[in-house]
Amino acid sequence: MKIVVDAMGGDYAPQNVIAGVVDAVKEYGVSVTLVGISDTIKAELKKFQYPQSLIEIVHAPEVVAMDDPATVVIRQKRNSSISVGMGLLKKEGYGAFVSAGNTGACVAASTFILGMIPQVDRPGIGCIFPSLKNFTLMIDVGANTAAKPEHLLQYAKMAKVYAQTVLGRTTPTIGLLNIGEEECKGTDFEKEAHKLLEEKEPSFIGNVEANEVFTGKTDCIVCDGYVGNITLKVAEGMMESAGKLLKREIKKNPISILGALLLKSSLSAAKKSVDYSEYGGAPLLGVDGLVLISHGRSSPKAIKNAVRCAKEEIEHNVLKKIKEEMAK
Amino acid sequence: MKIVVDAMGGDYAPQNVIAGVVDAVKEYGVSVTLVGISDTIKAELKKFQYPQSLIEIVHAPEVVAMDDPATVVIRQKRNSSISVGMGLLKKEGYGAFVSAGNTGACVAASTFILGMIPQVDRPGIGCIFPSLKNFTLMIDVGANTAAKPEHLLQYAKMAKVYAQTVLGRTTPTIGLLNIGEEECKGTDFEKEAHKLLEEKEPSFIGNVEANEVFTGKTDCIVCDGYVGNITLKVAEGMMESAGKLLKREIKKNPISILGALLLKSSLSAAKKSVDYSEYGGAPLLGVDGLVLISHGRSSPKAIKNAVRCAKEEIEHNVLKKIKEEMAK
Repeated sequence: MKIVVDAMGGDYAPQNVIAGVVDAVKEYGVSVTLVGISDTIKAELKKFQYPQSLIEIVHAPEVVAMDDPATVVIRQKRNSSISVGMGLLKKEGYGAFVSAGNTGACVAASTFILGMIPQVDRPGIGCIFPSLKNFTLMIDVGANTAAKPEHLLQYAKMAKVYAQTVLGRTTPTIGLLNIGEEECKGTDFEKEAHKLLEEKEPSFIGNVEANEVFTGKTDCIVCDGYVGNITLKVAEGMMESAGKLLKREIKKNPISILGALLLKSSLSAAKKSVDYSEYGGAPLLGVDGLVLISHGRSSPKAIKNAVRCAKEEIEHNVLKKIKEEMAK
Repeated sequence: MKIVVDAMGGDYAPQNVIAGVVDAVKEYGVSVTLVGISDTIKAELKKFQYPQSLIEIVHAPEVVAMDDPATVVIRQKRNSSISVGMGLLKKEGYGAFVSAGNTGACVAASTFILGMIPQVDRPGIGCIFPSLKNFTLMIDVGANTAAKPEHLLQYAKMAKVYAQTVLGRTTPTIGLLNIGEEECKGTDFEKEAHKLLEEKEPSFIGNVEANEVFTGKTDCIVCDGYVGNITLKVAEGMMESAGKLLKREIKKNPISILGALLLKSSLSAAKKSVDYSEYGGAPLLGVDGLVLISHGRSSPKAIKNAVRCAKEEIEHNVLKKIKEEMAK
């Protein structure tokens, strides 16, 4: 089963994408199909040594810019790497699609080209946050910014299956993101969603506050895409700024510089466990195909890990299992 | 001008509140009125040495619990420390009210007892986030979870005055929290708010993403109270969990323990600049009185700093200036 990778997607494409793909085929022995401007991909691939049989190229002449409107993949750029790559998933032998490109365009293309799973109305992006326990799978972090309560119930069911199959949790718990634990909290949207989840989803254990994302109180958290996206950006922004701030303080003091050197291995270990690039890709759940969206600023390591996630999703047959759950 | 402090508010009341107040009167020479169960306050005060003339006690027999519904201050517990304390602000000689108690109850009591400033429809809680530049004043972080675009315009005007007078920014800039910088981003609410802010508020410079809270791209950020509250909780939760994770890693390795010791002063300096207790209180803007809401888990230092903030707000005449701005 081949993994399709958007060679043109992301702030550092095609360089980081191709470097990551080369590492992935070497490390995991997977077959990858790179989609994008063929000559550009070939020129970049020449820099590396790798098992040639594991990487194929499919030409797509158009490139979706990071700031293009989402609908560009359906209207103007139907021959973009995103549209062409997504189309391959409908053919025999292609198992998953990975892109670090324009998130909105990936969501639009997958909805339009792959279609939705029966009983799912809207796709949701799942993000795997590191937590003190293990991880928290939050869905949605930005695909659907006008979610209805029933969408959150669908997200809950899909997240449960994903946590069981890919992330190895036998009996995952699900929480509803809210501004307080009591069921009377939040806007009408959260109150209705709480009621629906309580009625229909046995894994649901109630409201969770945003700080619980990092304590790992529940395995999965469902929320509207707008709030989920804010959560993701706050977490990223905070981590980055705190790191810069600490470096600034350390530089002021020679003893601290020595301390930082001695701390290096622990800092790296802690950083590794909170580093999004260790996870690599955020699964887009609800569409009829395996799609992973990587961060626009993905490093080669993040791309490599996204390919690993794609491989695991294929091996665990997660799409089939989500369909079975939704058909219940 | 006396500063009224809710002696019964917070997870560690009255101990932390009274310890913080004692430090504040000693350090800043301010006069404080402690409101709450008189005997409890007296017993606690006995533990300290302080200039007796600077602390007076006003008895309030009822206590609002942290999980009481907000309206309890208006309906059942009209003799609570929050209600009685807020009432004092209407008398001559009392300049500000500080509470680490039930946030919803403080918002309800201040709206009901103090009333709104003319031209302001809803109160908003301003939170001062540390950033790489200096600070970011975000409003609202939880008073009004169903904000309308015009409320955000009112928040923008009030935040501007607060940043100018209390925080010393001559020409503060204002951003609208959104999931993208382009003005087409967000839900209908953000699009309408963007249009209104652009038309009516010259300090408005456009949308900002949630990670910009910590880079300090704008001096002030306006948002709906629901999203603002999530932002605050994510930031708090992330900082706490990252700290725990780092400690866990450090303990595994003796060299790291030595490194951490050498790093101590820089870590404290960095921590100090991101520590909410250095700021102490979040101003509740829009009500006709100076109200500061402190974190439920406030340390004595956080309370001391909240009293300092109250003192500064009084000295800078911020209430009068906000009223003047709103009357323009």
